[in-house]
Amino acid sequence: MNAISEVPMVAADDGQKRFRQTDVSAIRQAIRSGEFSSHTSGLAGGNVQGNVVILPKDAASDFLRFCQNNRRPCPIIGLSEPGDPMLTALGVDIDIRTDVPRYHVWENGVVIDKPTDVSHLWRDDLVTFVIGCSFSFEQALVESGVHIRHIEQGCNVPMFKTNIQTTPAGPFSGPMVVSMRPMKATDAIKAIQITSRYPEVHGAPVHIGDPSLIGISDLGRPDYGDAVDVRVGDIPVFWACGVTPQAALLQAKPAFCITHAPGSMLITDLLNHQLASF
Amino acid sequence: MNAISEVPMVAADDGQKRFRQTDVSAIRQAIRSGEFSSHTSGLAGGNVQGNVVILPKDAASDFLRFCQNNRRPCPIIGLSEPGDPMLTALGVDIDIRTDVPRYHVWENGVVIDKPTDVSHLWRDDLVTFVIGCSFSFEQALVESGVHIRHIEQGCNVPMFKTNIQTTPAGPFSGPMVVSMRPMKATDAIKAIQITSRYPEVHGAPVHIGDPSLIGISDLGRPDYGDAVDVRVGDIPVFWACGVTPQAALLQAKPAFCITHAPGSMLITDLLNHQLASF
Repeated sequence: MNAISEVPMVAADDGQKRFRQTDVSAIRQAIRSGEFSSHTSGLAGGNVQGNVVILPKDAASDFLRFCQNNRRPCPIIGLSEPGDPMLTALGVDIDIRTDVPRYHVWENGVVIDKPTDVSHLWRDDLVTFVIGCSFSFEQALVESGVHIRHIEQGCNVPMFKTNIQTTPAGPFSGPMVVSMRPMKATDAIKAIQITSRYPEVHGAPVHIGDPSLIGISDLGRPDYGDAVDVRVGDIPVFWACGVTPQAALLQAKPAFCITHAPGSMLITDLLNHQLASF
Repeated sequence: MNAISEVPMVAADDGQKRFRQTDVSAIRQAIRSGEFSSHTSGLAGGNVQGNVVILPKDAASDFLRFCQNNRRPCPIIGLSEPGDPMLTALGVDIDIRTDVPRYHVWENGVVIDKPTDVSHLWRDDLVTFVIGCSFSFEQALVESGVHIRHIEQGCNVPMFKTNIQTTPAGPFSGPMVVSMRPMKATDAIKAIQITSRYPEVHGAPVHIGDPSLIGISDLGRPDYGDAVDVRVGDIPVFWACGVTPQAALLQAKPAFCITHAPGSMLITDLLNHQLASF
């Protein structure tokens, strides 16, 4: 099984500098030309980044129902018409064939290529899904003074399979995957308030407190990402995670599929703040 | 020390019927005439009820600073001009001298009388404070399907002194008192979202999880109110409580003071829903 992660390895920082505003069009040009083909964490950090799934129309129909059935882990922020490579809802000039730094091309559940451009693979029946990512709400948390352990420790957010089952659609099914951020109770309360305003990037937590209640036996051994310190007085806070649809995809093994390479996400023109619902 | 409680003993119910809309003017008339002089829980349940503190101007000045310094436990929803017995912000015809079912009259920290009318004690220098009560947010919780244990068990909410100190003002000081509602994690998350909308009735919780982190050693032995069942999988959720200012008052022992008798609160014309901040 391929490594899956929404969040690439990043350097420890105070969480502020990663969300600074930057010139997104220059970055997009570097990505489009193939000059930049790496991880996007901290790049144009004030802009919304998204997980990308591209499927032929028939599988896309099942996958759309799966996302609709499981909106907390699979919030769709962009959806194309079949065959249309442009994502006008996410930016004036986003061409999904060229504007992801690196792609994974899948056949029957196996990665067969990792190109920086998929123009040569484009078909008239391909539908693009862009799914929200917790990067966006992390900006709001950091700016409100909430301490995010994995950012401070310079590693990936720990992610866990749970005993919460997704609602299946066609071949897509599987457990909900959650990301976990340990924090003080007062930060946890504030984090619930803040992320409730971001339904398009997973929204409020799905669980707080005892990990065993959602089928997690050991916080020190995440299924994806890295373990972080859990300190005395911390309460673990669990959010639905964008790895859930990727895991469902691996399980469904569609004949053909294109995704972003883990960590190399689509950078949109939207600002994280614009996703706040009030 | 006198028994202190925001919440009188009530019958177990599903939480719905206590918040039904009723004719508040008829109830106020019964209170004003002395016909009704008992507990107000479940009475005009859709209307905002308030804790009442009446102090001479000098002590009132200190108490106002205390409330301002400690807005979470002491949210002022009504404040009179010195000597004015009317509370027009809370209703068209609320006379604080007659419209509380039963009063406690205090001298130097001791209850000296428990009348149903304080007109004969009224003075030109008396200032009335009406402080919000968690009854109001409990309606929103119940209507959203959140299970409130003490309502379902037909007892008072358990309240605890904490190691969180209030910010003193003049003679007023002391620990923050909190109310505790144990609930499932998903209900706790929803309860944080809902009560965040009610800053005038204590707002979001001040703590979740481990009671010992705020100086509570045994959830089964509340300092005020009644113990409730805490079940496997429950997370205790703690809100700042309107008993905090009453406890500060007991400690300050002002020369003269009038309060509502525990559980016999002021019923206002405001509706609980009107306190929602968005």
